[in-house]
Amino acid sequence: MNMELISALIAVAVSLFSVILGIYLFRWVGRYPVGSERMREIGEAIREGADAFLKKEYVILAFFSIAICTLLAIFLSISSAIAFLIGAISSGVAGLLGMKVALKANVRTATAADREGLEKAFLIAFRGGSVMGLLVVGLALAGVSVIYGITLKAEILLSFSFGASILSLFAKAGGGIYTKTADISADLVGKVEIGIPEDDPRNPAVIADNVGDNVGDVAGMGADLFDSYVASIVAAMVLGETLGVKMVVLPLILASVGILSSLAGVFSVRVRGEKNPGRALDLGTYITSAIFALATLVISMVLSYDLKFWGASMAGLVAGTVIGFTTDYFTSIDRHFVKRTAKASQSGAAITILTGYSYGLMSLLPSLVGIGVASGIAFALCGVYGIAISAVSMLAIVGMIISSDAYGPIVDNAKGISEQSGLSEKVISLTDKLDAAGNTSKAITKGFAIGAAGLTVIALLATYQERVAAITGQSITFDLMNPLVMLGLLTGLCVPALFSAMIMLGVSKNAFRMIAEIRRQFKEIKGLSEGTTRPDYARCVEIATTGALKELMLPSLISIGITLLIAFIGGIHALGGFLGGAILSGLFNALLMANSGGMWDNSKKYIEDGAFGGKGSDAHKAAIIGDTVGDPFKDTAGPSPLNTLITVLSLVASLISPLVILYAVFK
Amino acid sequence: MNMELISALIAVAVSLFSVILGIYLFRWVGRYPVGSERMREIGEAIREGADAFLKKEYVILAFFSIAICTLLAIFLSISSAIAFLIGAISSGVAGLLGMKVALKANVRTATAADREGLEKAFLIAFRGGSVMGLLVVGLALAGVSVIYGITLKAEILLSFSFGASILSLFAKAGGGIYTKTADISADLVGKVEIGIPEDDPRNPAVIADNVGDNVGDVAGMGADLFDSYVASIVAAMVLGETLGVKMVVLPLILASVGILSSLAGVFSVRVRGEKNPGRALDLGTYITSAIFALATLVISMVLSYDLKFWGASMAGLVAGTVIGFTTDYFTSIDRHFVKRTAKASQSGAAITILTGYSYGLMSLLPSLVGIGVASGIAFALCGVYGIAISAVSMLAIVGMIISSDAYGPIVDNAKGISEQSGLSEKVISLTDKLDAAGNTSKAITKGFAIGAAGLTVIALLATYQERVAAITGQSITFDLMNPLVMLGLLTGLCVPALFSAMIMLGVSKNAFRMIAEIRRQFKEIKGLSEGTTRPDYARCVEIATTGALKELMLPSLISIGITLLIAFIGGIHALGGFLGGAILSGLFNALLMANSGGMWDNSKKYIEDGAFGGKGSDAHKAAIIGDTVGDPFKDTAGPSPLNTLITVLSLVASLISPLVILYAVFK
Repeated sequence: MNMELISALIAVAVSLFSVILGIYLFRWVGRYPVGSERMREIGEAIREGADAFLKKEYVILAFFSIAICTLLAIFLSISSAIAFLIGAISSGVAGLLGMKVALKANVRTATAADREGLEKAFLIAFRGGSVMGLLVVGLALAGVSVIYGITLKAEILLSFSFGASILSLFAKAGGGIYTKTADISADLVGKVEIGIPEDDPRNPAVIADNVGDNVGDVAGMGADLFDSYVASIVAAMVLGETLGVKMVVLPLILASVGILSSLAGVFSVRVRGEKNPGRALDLGTYITSAIFALATLVISMVLSYDLKFWGASMAGLVAGTVIGFTTDYFTSIDRHFVKRTAKASQSGAAITILTGYSYGLMSLLPSLVGIGVASGIAFALCGVYGIAISAVSMLAIVGMIISSDAYGPIVDNAKGISEQSGLSEKVISLTDKLDAAGNTSKAITKGFAIGAAGLTVIALLATYQERVAAITGQSITFDLMNPLVMLGLLTGLCVPALFSAMIMLGVSKNAFRMIAEIRRQFKEIKGLSEGTTRPDYARCVEIATTGALKELMLPSLISIGITLLIAFIGGIHALGGFLGGAILSGLFNALLMANSGGMWDNSKKYIEDGAFGGKGSDAHKAAIIGDTVGDPFKDTAGPSPLNTLITVLSLVASLISPLVILYAVFK
Repeated sequence: MNMELISALIAVAVSLFSVILGIYLFRWVGRYPVGSERMREIGEAIREGADAFLKKEYVILAFFSIAICTLLAIFLSISSAIAFLIGAISSGVAGLLGMKVALKANVRTATAADREGLEKAFLIAFRGGSVMGLLVVGLALAGVSVIYGITLKAEILLSFSFGASILSLFAKAGGGIYTKTADISADLVGKVEIGIPEDDPRNPAVIADNVGDNVGDVAGMGADLFDSYVASIVAAMVLGETLGVKMVVLPLILASVGILSSLAGVFSVRVRGEKNPGRALDLGTYITSAIFALATLVISMVLSYDLKFWGASMAGLVAGTVIGFTTDYFTSIDRHFVKRTAKASQSGAAITILTGYSYGLMSLLPSLVGIGVASGIAFALCGVYGIAISAVSMLAIVGMIISSDAYGPIVDNAKGISEQSGLSEKVISLTDKLDAAGNTSKAITKGFAIGAAGLTVIALLATYQERVAAITGQSITFDLMNPLVMLGLLTGLCVPALFSAMIMLGVSKNAFRMIAEIRRQFKEIKGLSEGTTRPDYARCVEIATTGALKELMLPSLISIGITLLIAFIGGIHALGGFLGGAILSGLFNALLMANSGGMWDNSKKYIEDGAFGGKGSDAHKAAIIGDTVGDPFKDTAGPSPLNTLITVLSLVASLISPLVILYAVFK
């Protein structure tokens, strides 16, 4: 048996092991009890809402996927179409199961916090999150390695990656619009107009709002990293094809080692002694990284790989960590920038906005230079292939990263459920402590995801270049001074901007619809304000769902449409420039929106903790406006969909390159 | 006598003619009477404040220029240093005289509106603005053609252009910080804390605020176009050197024709019959463009230039117009986008911000694609030289463009003076009508300036490339997939963002200082609140001035410092990528900030005109917050300094390229 098959089989084995452990943890979480009847009720309502969303979303996505699948079958090949479908389904299943377990874990975490204390509650929440982490890496690597093991062709994986990415894009953009629609509408009518507290069960939008946290945060981040993870492996394998079999399988080996390291990390995490959940999460990440670094070094030597590949790999790992910590530094509640933004709130909302936005602009430098330096080092060591390898390594430990990230919304929900079902002050403060630990890991993950996406798309640009070269038999460069490349760059620059803008405007439009519905219910359903009748939760969930899916279609189609226009009118050089422009603009806007948004969010919290007059002060009012601007920035239009958008566009470019060249010849 | 000398002499003659006519109009405006004693007093106070600002600014700039001049003399050549100084002085003189005449014209416009009616008032305001227009193009072309006539070397002009740009950068960034400092502080203490009306003479900051309009708007836009104008001509001449003498002098010929066309346009403008001042301004621009298009066609044929150069020239002219009108479309008070933003204000300030920002992001596409298409057509016709020619042609009619733009702040000031000196309702409504016409031309100019800067910096990137090729004897490409180029691109992307951010934060810092001073005066100067004592206007002017100059130094030095770091650490490829990144990011942010800012501004005005509850409504309050965010976006940190920043960085790159190459060889 040759090296390709052996590596593919090992990768399949490791990834299935990860899936099995994920399912084991799924059941492990499920075995824990659900507390009172009240808690069961709330949990059940959220679950129903989430199911309604998922059902609707997946039906629409199924139709859409079949349409693309048909196009691929006609214009490319049947095997492409099949690979695309498998990619879409894997990404969908990972998101689905991840959400399911989150919905189980939140009530159980609250119950454990009440009955068994911090240690157990933490473990349930974290392991709930781990299900998502292990399934994402397991299903992704399984898909890649099975398809590769059967076809032994790396190109076909581009379609698999495209399937995963397009599903991620919709899941995230849709989830993002959904979350903010529900959030804004529930607050605006409930808190502001009717004057009932947040999360009050009389509010028809309350369940939609709770569902949103899971749809946006759990499924969103999982999908984001799923698609980068797959894309980086695929880019490295395609680029490796010209370098020989050993290079094609290296990404599979690195990913397998990464999964095993993540498993070690995940099962090592628990709170002991000093009971600091934040440190426990960080420790898990350190353990995973250390094992990964060491194990890849040993394996490189055993399999007699040149150590320069290991060097490229480490460049990625270090860059990921640096970018993650930079993000944390800029958005952390006890650092200079957040405090300054909070201070600026004393001079009114406009100054809050200007200050946070300015700091957001300043925060770009370390992260973007970090991506540039990492890709430069990787390139110096092993060419464009090195860039792809550094991306793979950065993402290899993603099993652990997602686990601590998905922990966040679970404890957040657990806190909400504890409050709504009237648990004791002590329990609530305990869930509060769990929640605070989630916020830091969330900021780090966001930076990590942007960095990984950056390296991945640069590798995908190289993949596109190599594919064009392979088809035409001539090497191709994308010179800035080629006016077609420049036209492409300028156009590419606009597309992520346009996409973000349309998504944000979509939230407003959708919120208007939902606000009308909430007002209608309060007017027409008798006894609702008094709490004697139950509102029609399902109708609100339905409106948020339909609207979200509607609002994401146009920007997605326009973005892909512009890509096709540039490709077929401008040709391969314009398309290369276009990808470059989209990558630069995507990274720029994702980082800016994530970091400004994070700063506004935490500066509001800083004031709520008592600074500058605390809750209810003028500074607080200004900070709330900042936070309301920041929410769609960071959670809807910013990093999450933009990372995936640029991946999707890069994959589209690689996939259509044969057609573009053919068209240019016939024209 | 050869063609170089003849062309240079003609250009000198035409530009001196423009300067002489400018001085004639300066005196023409001065001959008109100043109305009442009260008006004279107000005018005098503004003039004093402006003088204080200018004196301080020019002293600091003189020191700074001498420092750079010394560096150039040491590292490059004495002639470079001299050319630099001449550039700096020309730019400075044009700004100085433009402001002087604006300060004369504003009182005289108000007087004429009172005593002679619309026609005369319009003419005084417009001709006051024309002084700036004619001096800018006259002094710029005179400098270029005299230096070229003496040295017959195009390279030396890069230093001249650098001098003009660095002075423009400081004038604009400094003026921008000054204006907003005064504006915010005057409003915050005066209107909000003390409760006196805007422009109340008891407010110690009122004169600083009035001075700011002139410093920021008149001198700012003039300086912006001065530096692009010079840079485009210089880029075209340097690129023309490899193509022969005929190509080197073509930019001088085009610029000369442009000046004569502008003169025809300027002297044709007057309000007749239907008395629509907006149409009169537009008509002037159309006349200028038509004459320019026709005259260049005829001259191309007479001098037997290939008509493809005329084609490149027209691509620039058309692109400028398209971008100008796009800007107007997105920011005009009676269009969809502004109305929508105003409507969104009903849901609170956060939604106002999100909506305006989203539309700003959407507005990028037509303008950036426009720049891309224009440069593509120009390139297809005559290579990189064509791009420079299209930039020259776009800017050739700038004499007329600046004239209608500088008209804006003059009538704005005239309106203010009419109100403060208690002229009749009829006169005020007449100045209002004059003012409204200024706003449209202002939006168009802003778009025009960004478009021109875009084409110019692309041409400067080509200049840099050509200089490197000339020195090393090898052609050089900036391939997106070269990791040094990519590192450069990513770093370049951050610099305009960092610069904008620091300028915006500088405004806040400076405003805090000034607010403290205003509060002190109200507390310590007896009889101030009652209006029996005069406040210390000069102290406020002094604080705004010193602070503005202080706050602009750091971002400017950091931006140039990063350029040098990239150049000497990364080498010529990284520097090329860096310029590319800075250009893309500069255009992106300039357009975004200009258009969002314009939208917020006009949507506030739309509400003040009575929509959605009008003045004092909740929508109005939200719109005011939007406008307060938008003001520094569009007037301080956005297009004006960014256009010049990217020009400065491009010129720095071209100038230091011999040193960078030398350093790389020795390293």
